[in-house]
Amino acid sequence: MYHESKQSPRQTSGRSGNSHRSNAPSASSHRGGGRSAKDVRPNPGESYVFPFTDKRNKKMFPYLTPRQALRRKLGVTEYRAGALKKGTLRVIPFGGVEQVGLNCMGLEYEGEVLIIDMGIQFADQDQHGIHGSIPDLSYLRHKKIAGIAITHGHIDHIGAIPYIMPQLGRDTLMYATPMAYELIKMRQADLNAPLSRLTQYERGKPVQIGKHFIVTPFVVDHSIPDSVGLSIETPIGRFIHTGDWKFDKKPLPYRPSTDYDLLKTYGDRGVRALFSDSTNAHLIGSSISESEVINSIEEIMRAAQGRIITATFSSIIDRVMIIIAAAEKLGRKVVLLGRGMNNYMDIAIKLGYARPKEGTIITMQEADKLPKEKVVICCTGAQGERFAALTRIATGESQDTALLPDDTVVFSSSVIPGNERSVQNLFDIISAQGPRIFQYKESEIHAGGHARRDDTLKMISLIRPEVYVPIYGYPHMLYGNARNAYELWYSEDRVPILRNGRILEFSAEGFELMDQYAPHRAMTIDGSLVGMTRENHMHDRYQLQLNGVVVVSIGKRKGDYLIRTECRGMVALEQFPKLLSKIEEMIRNALQKDSEKFADVEQFKKFVAKKTGDAIFTAIGKEPIVVVTVH
Amino acid sequence: MYHESKQSPRQTSGRSGNSHRSNAPSASSHRGGGRSAKDVRPNPGESYVFPFTDKRNKKMFPYLTPRQALRRKLGVTEYRAGALKKGTLRVIPFGGVEQVGLNCMGLEYEGEVLIIDMGIQFADQDQHGIHGSIPDLSYLRHKKIAGIAITHGHIDHIGAIPYIMPQLGRDTLMYATPMAYELIKMRQADLNAPLSRLTQYERGKPVQIGKHFIVTPFVVDHSIPDSVGLSIETPIGRFIHTGDWKFDKKPLPYRPSTDYDLLKTYGDRGVRALFSDSTNAHLIGSSISESEVINSIEEIMRAAQGRIITATFSSIIDRVMIIIAAAEKLGRKVVLLGRGMNNYMDIAIKLGYARPKEGTIITMQEADKLPKEKVVICCTGAQGERFAALTRIATGESQDTALLPDDTVVFSSSVIPGNERSVQNLFDIISAQGPRIFQYKESEIHAGGHARRDDTLKMISLIRPEVYVPIYGYPHMLYGNARNAYELWYSEDRVPILRNGRILEFSAEGFELMDQYAPHRAMTIDGSLVGMTRENHMHDRYQLQLNGVVVVSIGKRKGDYLIRTECRGMVALEQFPKLLSKIEEMIRNALQKDSEKFADVEQFKKFVAKKTGDAIFTAIGKEPIVVVTVH
Repeated sequence: MYHESKQSPRQTSGRSGNSHRSNAPSASSHRGGGRSAKDVRPNPGESYVFPFTDKRNKKMFPYLTPRQALRRKLGVTEYRAGALKKGTLRVIPFGGVEQVGLNCMGLEYEGEVLIIDMGIQFADQDQHGIHGSIPDLSYLRHKKIAGIAITHGHIDHIGAIPYIMPQLGRDTLMYATPMAYELIKMRQADLNAPLSRLTQYERGKPVQIGKHFIVTPFVVDHSIPDSVGLSIETPIGRFIHTGDWKFDKKPLPYRPSTDYDLLKTYGDRGVRALFSDSTNAHLIGSSISESEVINSIEEIMRAAQGRIITATFSSIIDRVMIIIAAAEKLGRKVVLLGRGMNNYMDIAIKLGYARPKEGTIITMQEADKLPKEKVVICCTGAQGERFAALTRIATGESQDTALLPDDTVVFSSSVIPGNERSVQNLFDIISAQGPRIFQYKESEIHAGGHARRDDTLKMISLIRPEVYVPIYGYPHMLYGNARNAYELWYSEDRVPILRNGRILEFSAEGFELMDQYAPHRAMTIDGSLVGMTRENHMHDRYQLQLNGVVVVSIGKRKGDYLIRTECRGMVALEQFPKLLSKIEEMIRNALQKDSEKFADVEQFKKFVAKKTGDAIFTAIGKEPIVVVTVH
Repeated sequence: MYHESKQSPRQTSGRSGNSHRSNAPSASSHRGGGRSAKDVRPNPGESYVFPFTDKRNKKMFPYLTPRQALRRKLGVTEYRAGALKKGTLRVIPFGGVEQVGLNCMGLEYEGEVLIIDMGIQFADQDQHGIHGSIPDLSYLRHKKIAGIAITHGHIDHIGAIPYIMPQLGRDTLMYATPMAYELIKMRQADLNAPLSRLTQYERGKPVQIGKHFIVTPFVVDHSIPDSVGLSIETPIGRFIHTGDWKFDKKPLPYRPSTDYDLLKTYGDRGVRALFSDSTNAHLIGSSISESEVINSIEEIMRAAQGRIITATFSSIIDRVMIIIAAAEKLGRKVVLLGRGMNNYMDIAIKLGYARPKEGTIITMQEADKLPKEKVVICCTGAQGERFAALTRIATGESQDTALLPDDTVVFSSSVIPGNERSVQNLFDIISAQGPRIFQYKESEIHAGGHARRDDTLKMISLIRPEVYVPIYGYPHMLYGNARNAYELWYSEDRVPILRNGRILEFSAEGFELMDQYAPHRAMTIDGSLVGMTRENHMHDRYQLQLNGVVVVSIGKRKGDYLIRTECRGMVALEQFPKLLSKIEEMIRNALQKDSEKFADVEQFKKFVAKKTGDAIFTAIGKEPIVVVTVH
């Protein structure tokens, strides 16, 4: 079915002549022979080589990503950090101020470093094949670590612990609130790597960490219980780090909520700097309360004739509890599907944050015996993740259950930027089988866990810090958060915008955003390889993804050269005999006539790769990576 | 810096012993030697191999995409279309009912086919390296084409014309309204492929196309002037095809808007089927009017101290005109940046749809001489496209201008699902240089061009068709649109949900959604290759993207075997000497001891590829494509 245009694709001028349509389409679609370009007219639905036009005739590689282009523009920063003066507190954002995730910050004072959180960053779309990233803590190589304080149990705050603790030593002191403590323990046990000095701290109880830091965790509202912010008393004053937070006007039962008086007291006593969450702080308004979500979910449950399937993250424990509460109110039973969902809920129940009634939680087997309108299935997969429970149910790969036409599927989560198409895909697969879908754009079935503009303004007003430092988010979120402070008459010089690694120093009198950077290249997790994958590997993957690979293997046999090509991720070159013989001729010429030109075999291989790539691009407009082997 | 764990990565048990942190980190980070697994502890920031855990120890390939899984579940449809009975009208959706884009429909009656639109589909995230897709029109091979009717000039309706007309013949009759006519002509001229029978039709004027179709284009509101729906009179009654549409309560000047009376008249006379746009029909409410957008844009312009840079599509002509109107009102001049922006506007001006005042449109050179608060720069790039004007301005690659700190950047467009991260990336790059950003989530600076639920309900009520057929959109959008009809008491059997290629037939009495499919595999545009890229190529690209490629080349020299490996998109295997010698040993064994096992060299190569892949996965958790060459 394939055929090669006899004409060089760059010559387009001959094409327009053939505008008369033959009445009888040719019986055979193969057009290998000696026909001229004018004859090449495919039948409807037949594949063909579309001639180049001038505009499209541009090579794309070598390719500069937008971020590479920006770095080139703003200047690459060298790693350099001067000695720390006595009486100065140094803040090192190891990560989390140029992305969502990778949250990790160091506070250094007179030879001791306090670390706050150790989060993972899930891979971005252009990080092909990468599972995630962890902060680069090279800065700590010759430092003494006073301890690690964890704000809450979400993966973007604790996920790097298994990868980093082998570097820091498993007996480094680590503090966490009960929920985070249990989650860290669970993960480390899974990886067979327990921590020897993981310990709990309590809300409102100050702990001395190292010689210089007194850390008091205080309650914040967030989508997982036991989330805290940190008040850090140092010899040069108090610093407040919010962790992830929002204000919840109607918090769920069985847990403490924000203590506004405490925040105001901190403010009254004076705070050097407030480090605050930027994830949603650039968005107008205020996030709705978890308690408001329950009404929407109840309404959907009431209207549904069949089963309810809810999709969310297992780590948004509060949402799962709301779903359970709504089910109890309306006489439905709940199946928690999947290991993660059950593990998280077990911990929440153990700690008293979730208190489902006896008999509410049932197994799938029990649910199958109930009338359909009595069942709620609570599972993961709201981001369209390929191997999450909901996707497997929708595609028919789940062992547990399959979709029924009168199911109602509730996506109780916002969509993480980058996942939109996966989620739409899942919508398609589900709706083609009958179920009705509810998503957060249509109903109030999701409450964000992060403060928006109004709450942020309130927080700044309560704390009234000398310096306001936006953290947690992509740069545009940090800049957006900074505007909140400007609105409260902070001048720009009191709102430093951090970058990963950029050092911020506080003395007793003032502060300075230094022109110094600690090492801060996020270390990639790529299969089992931590920190080994380089920019050029990513670049190759990008090119491979778009264009595939061609292997040209050259060997000698009986005095002649044997040239073979193998293609992956692209059409075999055998489909284009003219192109193939052009490449072979080029190689033979190089071997026979020009062989003295090449200093060594590597230079020869490079030459062949370049020429082969050019010939392929000219013929078919693709730019595969060409690998040449010589024997 | 790289090192290989001496221990097999599957053996994790030995790791936990080393929980004591040495006080002095080792000076050298290289750990090549003969140390046991217990010793392998990286320094902070040092790369290392993270041992597998049972849970992660799963191969991913061969991998089934969610769509593949669904197809497997719902059954693959064979192409099969019976002979068409006399007096029956056959509708063939060649594309556009399983995606946004690829819009193309055939109406066949007694030996003649009327085609409506020939759109391209831009590639989805998982279509690596694909520029877009065009409909597969194999069905038309032995058919007579009565003519082609174009609804409007957007690329998802006309973009496939240059690719398809070589198949159908450039003298096939094609009708378009003036704006679409000019845009088609422009594109074909660019590609040096004029159409000989491209002609115009006028709003409200019926044209006879072939023997059986009388087509009357009627005005609809959409984001490009001259958008029409089609009333198609056939021997068995009238069919209405909306094209892309919405109702605009306050349409822009200089153009006709929806004629509600006409629609009602059609309804009164009886309509067999209404084919209607589903893109936004599943979303609640009604889209705002373009005229409302102008207020928000004026407000932003009024507040801005410096230049305004707006980003949109050049094909959303109405938006560009609004920006120009706002600029005129506030005494700013407008630079249209980029070839597309100028071409589209030239046509709009020529046709009288845009009437900027003398002197409003200026060049960048002229703008550079004006005070900054007198300048608006109108460019493309609202989707964060890598090579669009705005991205190039932001990264400093533009020849025309660079960002200034007091610029205001207005993203006057919604974000196409899948582009969110690119857009956020662009936000980051822009905000890091100072400018304030406005986006559609924050301000009313974008009006959708497609009808939402309220307008759709109104349209159905006006037309009152026998059958309501949702078209244009991903499946979940079609199912969402169907609910609009249900709400107006249509029963499910009067709302057929199409699939690409699925045949729908109308007789004088009724209709039937057939269990027959015309060929409908979208043909990919991949470089210059049209329709040649197969599923397995895409699958390979996916694997290459995640894992890269390893080439194992085996040659004989002086009686021994010479084995070399080359890696692309992954860490070189030389970094893992133990793994490398394991692979070499395996190959030597296969060559020497087991050589009789292999029927031919292909089988041998397959064996080596499989074993090499397994060894790599075991050692480092990656699954590269392995290509073996033998000489």
